[in-house]
Order: sequence, then structure tokens, then C-alpha cells
Amino acid sequence: MAEGDSIASLDEVRALLREFPGPDLEAGTAAAQRQAELTKPAGSLGRLEDLAQWLASWQGRHPPRVERPYTAVFAGNHGVAAQGVSAYPAAVTKQMVQNFIDGGAAINQLCGLIDADLRVYELSLDQPTLDFTQGPAMDETDCAHAMAYGMSAVEDGIDVLALGEMGIANTTSAAAICHALFGGAAADWVGRGTGIDDTTLERKIAVVEQAVALHRATMSDPFEVLRHLGGLEIAAVAGAVMAARMARTPVVLDGFACTVAAAVLHAADPHALDHCVVAHRSAEAGHQRVLDRLGKQPLLDLGLRLGEASGAALAILLLKAACACHSGMATFAEAGVSGPA
Amino acid sequence: MAEGDSIASLDEVRALLREFPGPDLEAGTAAAQRQAELTKPAGSLGRLEDLAQWLASWQGRHPPRVERPYTAVFAGNHGVAAQGVSAYPAAVTKQMVQNFIDGGAAINQLCGLIDADLRVYELSLDQPTLDFTQGPAMDETDCAHAMAYGMSAVEDGIDVLALGEMGIANTTSAAAICHALFGGAAADWVGRGTGIDDTTLERKIAVVEQAVALHRATMSDPFEVLRHLGGLEIAAVAGAVMAARMARTPVVLDGFACTVAAAVLHAADPHALDHCVVAHRSAEAGHQRVLDRLGKQPLLDLGLRLGEASGAALAILLLKAACACHSGMATFAEAGVSGPA
Repeated sequence: MAEGDSIASLDEVRALLREFPGPDLEAGTAAAQRQAELTKPAGSLGRLEDLAQWLASWQGRHPPRVERPYTAVFAGNHGVAAQGVSAYPAAVTKQMVQNFIDGGAAINQLCGLIDADLRVYELSLDQPTLDFTQGPAMDETDCAHAMAYGMSAVEDGIDVLALGEMGIANTTSAAAICHALFGGAAADWVGRGTGIDDTTLERKIAVVEQAVALHRATMSDPFEVLRHLGGLEIAAVAGAVMAARMARTPVVLDGFACTVAAAVLHAADPHALDHCVVAHRSAEAGHQRVLDRLGKQPLLDLGLRLGEASGAALAILLLKAACACHSGMATFAEAGVSGPA
Repeated sequence: MAEGDSIASLDEVRALLREFPGPDLEAGTAAAQRQAELTKPAGSLGRLEDLAQWLASWQGRHPPRVERPYTAVFAGNHGVAAQGVSAYPAAVTKQMVQNFIDGGAAINQLCGLIDADLRVYELSLDQPTLDFTQGPAMDETDCAHAMAYGMSAVEDGIDVLALGEMGIANTTSAAAICHALFGGAAADWVGRGTGIDDTTLERKIAVVEQAVALHRATMSDPFEVLRHLGGLEIAAVAGAVMAARMARTPVVLDGFACTVAAAVLHAADPHALDHCVVAHRSAEAGHQRVLDRLGKQPLLDLGLRLGEASGAALAILLLKAACACHSGMATFAEAGVSGPA
């Protein structure tokens, strides 16, 4: 994709953000008008009605369609895993990528159900980011390249893009980004990830606190926060969100780490995520706090905390339902159904 | 279906309730054991894991399957509509039934999406129940026959049954049942239904208050509450829930009126709905209060208030997702993925 190919610095990323297009108001209005004529009390399909209008606005067409969803899962490794912040060894990132390729993970089954193409993007798993308790996780070139790699996932003709991630220790990275972007206490943003015990949780909080304190002075903007505390797969998710905006592709964000990647863009421009919905409220403790900052209400609340775009794939089902109702229902006039008395 | 054919009195209904089978513990245990071996942190698929186990327990088989869902929508008319409690004229019930038959309603599109058979059951639409502000809505025979008709919807071999209803003024009936079963103030249970204005809302509250006061002394048990204040389609939904239990068919309940029909059974036996999940939290005001009484947490919260099994059909998508993950995922051993460190 053109945007991705040319990105080699964070300044180019910042410049691209300033080029973001707005919604297609004509398509959105057409959707709202049709919605009002369908055989149901006004508003009775709740968020499905909002979703149909949102899809039309950001696909730039009416009626909206979700026939070709695409799921991109970005996988990266984190130097901070060496601090013992996860319940699983770092080797699991690569093993799970193989599981994705072999078709054995949850996301494979869910992509089968939603009839989505699934692609897994490995970000140099043998070269993790640096341990950000010691120094910046990435240099600027690595961060920009990871974002560009994420941008390259957005091909033409995708109806909707489901984004997810895999990376042992990446909830530590995501929590650190939140603490840096939004303040509060480190403990506000740190959760149990894959299921850590109390001792590990205390260590994870200390790691986040220490890292943010170390880098505080040198993090001049959200992209610097991403570079210092993020991971390659988190940068790639942010890049994919950006490229989707340029390509008029609505985005479904998955759980905590994925939403935090997008939150970096939101911190740089409060309208940067208008083309995104958040799939679900993760069981990871910090997710709701991030959602509050973004002003996003998740579509599902099922206690998921798996990542790998699993919640995003589920939410695609709701987008399909929204489109099916919007396009397939009869109008009051067509069906000969009386309106309000 | 055998149960339905023989039911002609509420005593026979009460007797059937006492024959309800429990869950299949062996199938449930097999599901829990497999769940623990799949390539994901324990519990990370949240409620999808619970759903897989619940389906296995109530289908009485492992692995559970949702390949042949069945959607039954019951339609009835209500004498109390004459009190002016709805935004729509009573003629809309029949018009919407025709819309279901013609394929133009929301539920048609959603059943297409979930690959479900849809059948609409009309309950003598030209003979509404009596206006329960004047006397009992139904005599015992009519109530029992409506329940039996609901029972007849449950054929053999249905993987899961999605239940819904259509009936102008039936949220008034449902609110009255709640007020009688659960107490509180009439206003606690009355909502805006299809979208009534403030004046109509006040009238609807007064109607519910008056009806429950009128019948209070003669409603000796939950089935008498159903007979005095219910509707034919509400009785049919209750019957379908009962027949499904006997046939080992898990049930997905839709919104307010549907949940209230089931609540009649719960009031008679607190375990009567163990084979049911509630699809979604309706925007109708009383629904959350009913859910609190039933101890049920809805799967979705999308601001729906359409009825016609629309929320139940959406929830079937989640059951399909639960089965897909449960059956299709690799185990840690199969995938060569490391467990917790």
C-alpha cells in the first residue's frame, strides 16, 4: 500500500495523520433515511442501526456491506518479558503464530465462522524490542518500519478490517503506554494478562511504574510514547488503523493491547479513531479505563481476554447482522404495515 | 410433540414441570475437560467457554453443536390494546406476521445469517385475549391450549431453540405479569414498548396497576397469573420453553415479553430455566429487573427493543462461535504450545 511503502520516520507518520479523510456524509445520510423506513419501531434495532450508518459513512457507500472481512493479527516479542511479567514463556509467541498458521487457534475457528481471510504478520520474533526498563523499546526507524508493515496489511477492497495481536508481555507494554498517555497510577492500567499470580502482578506494576518514570522526560508526544514503551506488533496495529482510514476501510479493534495501539493515534488526534469500533470489553483490568478516555462503547462484554483478534472477529458477526437487516428488510410501504397510530 | 398433545389444563402443565430433567453432567464435564486443554489461557474465552459447557450439558452430548438452530416466533393479539397502551394499532400484529411470511422483517434477515429455520405461529389473531382490566385475559382451557401449541413447536433434532414473540400491547401484559409475580410498583415494570409518549406511558402504568389490583385475590399461583394477565403468545412461549426442556433442547430467550413468559415457569420452579440463556438486555425498562429476579445475565446489550426473536437470533451467533472454538481449536499437546512457565 502506498502510504506504508514511503514511511520511514515518525514525522512521516505525523504528516499522514493530518491527511485523514472524514466520513462520507452522503452515504451516512442515505443509511439513516433507509433505517427510518424499515418495518420496525424507530430505533428498535439499537446499536445495529448505528453500525449500519457508521459502516456506510466509513465505507463511503450505501448500502454498506460486510462480505469480505479481513482479519490481521500482528505478533511481536518484547524485551520486557525478561522481567518475568507474564505467566507464559516468551517462546509461546512463536508457537502460537505456528498454531495460527496450522489453523488451531481460536481466531482460526472464528474467521471460519465469519468467512474472513486471516493473515498473521510476524514482526521479527527473534529480535524482540529492547527491555524498556533499561532504555527505549525501539529506535525511531524500527518503530516507523513496524508501523509501515502494519499499513501494508490494508489492501484494496476490504469491507472491514478486524485487528488483533499476539505477544507475550504485551499487556505490560500496553499498560505502560496508558500510564504515560493518561497518567493515574501504574496499578490502574496493569491487569493479569494471561493469568498471572499476585506476586507477578506486583512485579508487573513496579515494572510499568519504573519504565514510565525512566522515560518521562524524553517522551515528547504520543508517537514517542509508542517508541519508548510499545512493541513492534503494537506499532503495526497503529499503522494498520492509519492505512485503513486512508483506504476507507472501517476497523474493528480487539481488546486491551489493540485498543491501546489505537489510543496512541487518538492521543495525537481525537478524531483519529472515528472509523473504528471497539469489539468488546476485555476482562483485562485497564481496558475499560482506556475506553472511557476514547469515548468508545464496546459492542460485546463476554469476559474475553485472549487477544489474537478473537473479540474483533465476534463483533464482525454483529456488523454482518446490521448489514443484513439494513439491506434485506422491507419498508413499511413495501410490506403494507401500518405506522404509529 | 407428545407433551403438547395431551395438555388441556393448567394442572397438567404443573405436573409436566415436576418431570423436568436435569443437565447431563457427563457431557458437561467432558466439555470442561476439553476446554482446559485448548490453546488459550484458562478462562480467556470468557462466556464462550461457559456457553460450550452449558450447551453440552443441556444437549446431552459432547461436543455440543449448533448446526440446526430453529427460531419460533409466536404472535397473539391482546384485548388490553383497546386501552390505548401501544403506539401502533392492533392490526399491526397481523401485518407483521405477513411480513415474517414474506421475508421482510428483521428476524428473516437474521435467520438467514444464522442459517436457522424460522416458523411463525399465529395464535388466533382474530380472537384476542379479553381485556384484563375487565376480567381474566384467558379461561383455563384457552391458556392451556396456547401453552400446548407452544409445546408443539419443539420438534426432535433441534440443536437450539430461539424464541420470540410479536403482539401489539404485549409489553403491557408482560409488565402486569411482572407486577403480579414480583411486586414493586407498576411503574417499575412498564416501559415505552414500541415507543409510546409520556401520556400513553402514564396510561399504561395505570392499566397495569388497575389490572393487578383487580385480579390479585384470584391469582393463586404463577400459572393463574399467566392466565389472568398474559396473552396467547406469552403462554405459547412458556409452553415452548417447557417442551424444549423435555426434549433436551437448549433455549435462547429474546427480550422482555419472552423473558417474562419464561419467568412464569421460574416462579413455579427456580430451576425451570436452567436450560435457557437470555439473549440480550432489552432497552425495555423492566427487562433488567426481571433478569435480576431470574439471576440471568444477558449475552448481548445492544439497546434492542424489537422482539420477534431478533436478539435471540443474534445470540445464536455467539453459540455458534462457542461451538466452533470448542470443537475446532487445537490442544496444547497437539499444537506443541508451552503451558504457563
